[in-house]
Amino acid sequence: MNPETTVTSDQSSRNVILLLSCPDRAGLVYRISNFVYQCGGNILDLDEHVDPVEKIFFVRILWSPESDSTPLSELEEAFRPLATEFDAEWKIRFTGLKTRIAIFVSRYDHCLLEILWRNSIGEFAVDIPLIISNHNDLAPLAAHYGIPFHVFPLNSANKETIECQEVALLEDNAIDTIVLARYMQILSPRFVKSYQSRIINIHHSFLPAFVGSSPYRQAYERGVKIIGATSHYVTEELDQGPIIAQDIIRVSHKDSLDDLVRKGRDLERLVLAKALRFHAEHRILVNGKKTVVFD
Amino acid sequence: MNPETTVTSDQSSRNVILLLSCPDRAGLVYRISNFVYQCGGNILDLDEHVDPVEKIFFVRILWSPESDSTPLSELEEAFRPLATEFDAEWKIRFTGLKTRIAIFVSRYDHCLLEILWRNSIGEFAVDIPLIISNHNDLAPLAAHYGIPFHVFPLNSANKETIECQEVALLEDNAIDTIVLARYMQILSPRFVKSYQSRIINIHHSFLPAFVGSSPYRQAYERGVKIIGATSHYVTEELDQGPIIAQDIIRVSHKDSLDDLVRKGRDLERLVLAKALRFHAEHRILVNGKKTVVFD
Amino acid sequence: MNPETTVTSDQSSRNVILLLSCPDRAGLVYRISNFVYQCGGNILDLDEHVDPVEKIFFVRILWSPESDSTPLSELEEAFRPLATEFDAEWKIRFTGLKTRIAIFVSRYDHCLLEILWRNSIGEFAVDIPLIISNHNDLAPLAAHYGIPFHVFPLNSANKETIECQEVALLEDNAIDTIVLARYMQILSPRFVKSYQSRIINIHHSFLPAFVGSSPYRQAYERGVKIIGATSHYVTEELDQGPIIAQDIIRVSHKDSLDDLVRKGRDLERLVLAKALRFHAEHRILVNGKKTVVFD
Amino acid sequence: MNPETTVTSDQSSRNVILLLSCPDRAGLVYRISNFVYQCGGNILDLDEHVDPVEKIFFVRILWSPESDSTPLSELEEAFRPLATEFDAEWKIRFTGLKTRIAIFVSRYDHCLLEILWRNSIGEFAVDIPLIISNHNDLAPLAAHYGIPFHVFPLNSANKETIECQEVALLEDNAIDTIVLARYMQILSPRFVKSYQSRIINIHHSFLPAFVGSSPYRQAYERGVKIIGATSHYVTEELDQGPIIAQDIIRVSHKDSLDDLVRKGRDLERLVLAKALRFHAEHRILVNGKKTVVFD
Repeated sequence: MNPETTVTSDQSSRNVILLLSCPDRAGLVYRISNFVYQCGGNILDLDEHVDPVEKIFFVRILWSPESDSTPLSELEEAFRPLATEFDAEWKIRFTGLKTRIAIFVSRYDHCLLEILWRNSIGEFAVDIPLIISNHNDLAPLAAHYGIPFHVFPLNSANKETIECQEVALLEDNAIDTIVLARYMQILSPRFVKSYQSRIINIHHSFLPAFVGSSPYRQAYERGVKIIGATSHYVTEELDQGPIIAQDIIRVSHKDSLDDLVRKGRDLERLVLAKALRFHAEHRILVNGKKTVVFD
Repeated sequence: MNPETTVTSDQSSRNVILLLSCPDRAGLVYRISNFVYQCGGNILDLDEHVDPVEKIFFVRILWSPESDSTPLSELEEAFRPLATEFDAEWKIRFTGLKTRIAIFVSRYDHCLLEILWRNSIGEFAVDIPLIISNHNDLAPLAAHYGIPFHVFPLNSANKETIECQEVALLEDNAIDTIVLARYMQILSPRFVKSYQSRIINIHHSFLPAFVGSSPYRQAYERGVKIIGATSHYVTEELDQGPIIAQDIIRVSHKDSLDDLVRKGRDLERLVLAKALRFHAEHRILVNGKKTVVFD
Repeated sequence: MNPETTVTSDQSSRNVILLLSCPDRAGLVYRISNFVYQCGGNILDLDEHVDPVEKIFFVRILWSPESDSTPLSELEEAFRPLATEFDAEWKIRFTGLKTRIAIFVSRYDHCLLEILWRNSIGEFAVDIPLIISNHNDLAPLAAHYGIPFHVFPLNSANKETIECQEVALLEDNAIDTIVLARYMQILSPRFVKSYQSRIINIHHSFLPAFVGSSPYRQAYERGVKIIGATSHYVTEELDQGPIIAQDIIRVSHKDSLDDLVRKGRDLERLVLAKALRFHAEHRILVNGKKTVVFD
Repeated sequence: MNPETTVTSDQSSRNVILLLSCPDRAGLVYRISNFVYQCGGNILDLDEHVDPVEKIFFVRILWSPESDSTPLSELEEAFRPLATEFDAEWKIRFTGLKTRIAIFVSRYDHCLLEILWRNSIGEFAVDIPLIISNHNDLAPLAAHYGIPFHVFPLNSANKETIECQEVALLEDNAIDTIVLARYMQILSPRFVKSYQSRIINIHHSFLPAFVGSSPYRQAYERGVKIIGATSHYVTEELDQGPIIAQDIIRVSHKDSLDDLVRKGRDLERLVLAKALRFHAEHRILVNGKKTVVFD
């Protein structure tokens, strides 16, 4: 079983997504669209980008297949020779299959509520089998949405042990992607490495401004006229991962530090939700320290 | 000679643009990218969209050709059978060839200055052989940028005659596209028809709000908290043409009508410039009363 | 008892707000600030505006009083002679007293959730004694936040009777302000009149564009590049009341009607929340068909 | 003669502006508005702010005086005792008097053109007696607007000498404020000190992100999704001065470094123009490392 996806009941409008990057060369669109055509697919959406400096080709194709009954493994098998020839990184997904995510939280509820609510009205293509926290505070919110809530009382002494337990839980639940919804702990490099380009964080500043802790306080003291929030993939370097989405809001001398926190909350939840939607819809390709987002 | 374009000296980095729309069907991307591949081209950028309601296919492809010496007519000839088979509206252009535009103005200088200045620093792929006005006021500005300035003192009695003279001048100069840079006259239906989807207007409101005259006064009296500007192709119905670009700015109770005019000026020139850039780079396809803008 | 307010436990940081409008004349700021000074107050924030066309003076003053124990009625009594002399509309409020609001909803949950959640974390200075709906759907959400939920199954035949029952319920609960959180019914003129400048609605378009029903469909069909949401006070004319807050988001040819609805939801809840916050903090004065918002 | 201002012909609508900051205490608004009232003035606009952390009071008052013939020195004399009592920093200005500014430029024309054009249509309350540059390139633009253009061929060896000549020229022309319109040289600490809070710079990034040189390249390499521009007062520490205005624009993976430069140009000129307007209208008070902007 592919750890990223789970079968949903709605197979009726199942489309196919290919997400691929490889060294650029002539004929790539032709060869890949030919593959789709030979499979009997009709392309509904195609986004293509060539990095003019690095000479890398990026593409996302969405097509409606001739038949809904072809299994994913068969499609992958058919495409593999082309991918090998192009030296590509790639994946194929069905739109009817949902990405399985785990949400990590601490005490703030706004980002968690945002994701759970959006998912409840069908905005995201995700399943949320579990929430992990280092505090009990948000258990009632998880319960309201019927999601199992696991508390791991982390401290400096037990970090390694706890992370092992968390990884075991993630693997048992076939979790593909982790969302840090204002999780106030730093993951170990080993943990990060196991989920490369699959951990999404929200940082409450306009990166690269105000890296690290207390960005609202830093912004308040610097006297900026605009504050921001940034969602990015987590890498081993703190707040340095590839940026997925950013947004901003105006502030003025009238805004206290509390006002910045209040205004920032709205940014944080919207930006994190946007990044998660892009990720769950397979719209993001990582390009070194940057992202290509086909929105 | 194609009336839209003029040869520039820089042929070194000449790329090819195809802009096409046709009824949707399977295999379109494959067939068109195959054409590019057979010509020896390498696709640098491809944007594709299918209107899911109308089932219309839209595409813009930018490619670097194998050879810089193939004439446009030969490329067009080679592509024609495919276009005919697809029942397509289409054009092929070279990036090294500039769209020839005429600017119509009355008394306000901000939109004219914006276009002339941007063109002077190479932001646009346009040539501006002439400016037409119903007043003398902006002649010095045109002179500073070295553009011929023609005054046609329009009134209700001579409108038909004047328009004939204007059209003759436009044809003599092989003008492809007309930009109404706050031109305070309404063009006749016949005139509009001759330049379908080739007359770009700037309306100083967030359309469809505040159609017609004095939109800032209307906005002031309604007490809106945001004002806008809209650039659109001109059709026979006033302010109803397909929208190309829009932008907005916040206003408050502190802003007088003069402040709205001042803030709106910045919107008008930026929005009009954006629309002209999209048009000159062949990024716009008209879809009935709407546009597809591949930005 | 003043129907607008209820005593909260936190009296420690109780400040005083004066909101006033009157015909402009020399000496108003001096006379009013003198009143504050004579009371022993220290002004923390003062916003003043004069409508240069209508010659009306608007002011909001926030001050910390010398003593926390002076009752509101005593302050009002002391200020009344000045207000009468100025022919002013005015109110004085304590920051420690919360506006009592009722929320009207139909089936969409996003605006209701937004208000209940923000109130739960202390963003608003409101008490919410009850929610009224013409459907059962949102009862569980109300229950989660512990707010009484009243269903009135409205139809064209029983409208007058139902409204009488609703008004009785509102009066029993000393409700000051009504929030229409995507309530899909039109209130009768008589109802509207009883709560003048105290009913806040959210309309899902950038007013005055797309008045009436299905604004997202109207926007989709017009092909706009930006959509909006507008919060306003309800008057007898549909969607014509004084605008409190507006916001916008960009859309493109890629966005389906469903995408507009999804993007619009985020606008609606943020704009309505903003308008409610301004109202609850006594930051809004109505100026004919417009508002003065001291934000 | 006051070096900041010069008499204009339009005395008809001359209003008075007081800009003041001092340690906060009770009665300040009352005492100051009483002063205005005693002078026979009618307050048209009053903005007040108290820094709740530093306990500093800031105010800007605009009033129409009883008589247009009272000289500035007399008003200043009358107000001085109050200012002394409050230990205030303050200035009084007439709206009919224009701030005298010098513009420093290098080779980019966009910021210079923006200021000269806006001034030509009366947007700014400034006089521009001279432009200083370390290159000849922009002399024709200065000539078109009829402004004397002085070239000082600066290099590492002659910096001190050149700055002395520049200061002499500034003093001869009674220059109050210096605008660095993409001036690519760093002013000496001594120079900066002489024009404290009177040198306005535009930095082409969203400060504090991307301090120093090549901010667009830094932004491109970091892969941000939004770029910005920041206007600030120059202090001895590079790019650390109090921020006056900021704005941003969205970018994506499609944008090359050249696109960032192009998009950024629009930000730079609008943000610098906004900052200069605030400054010229006496709307800015410096609060340590921050600004209070009464917009």
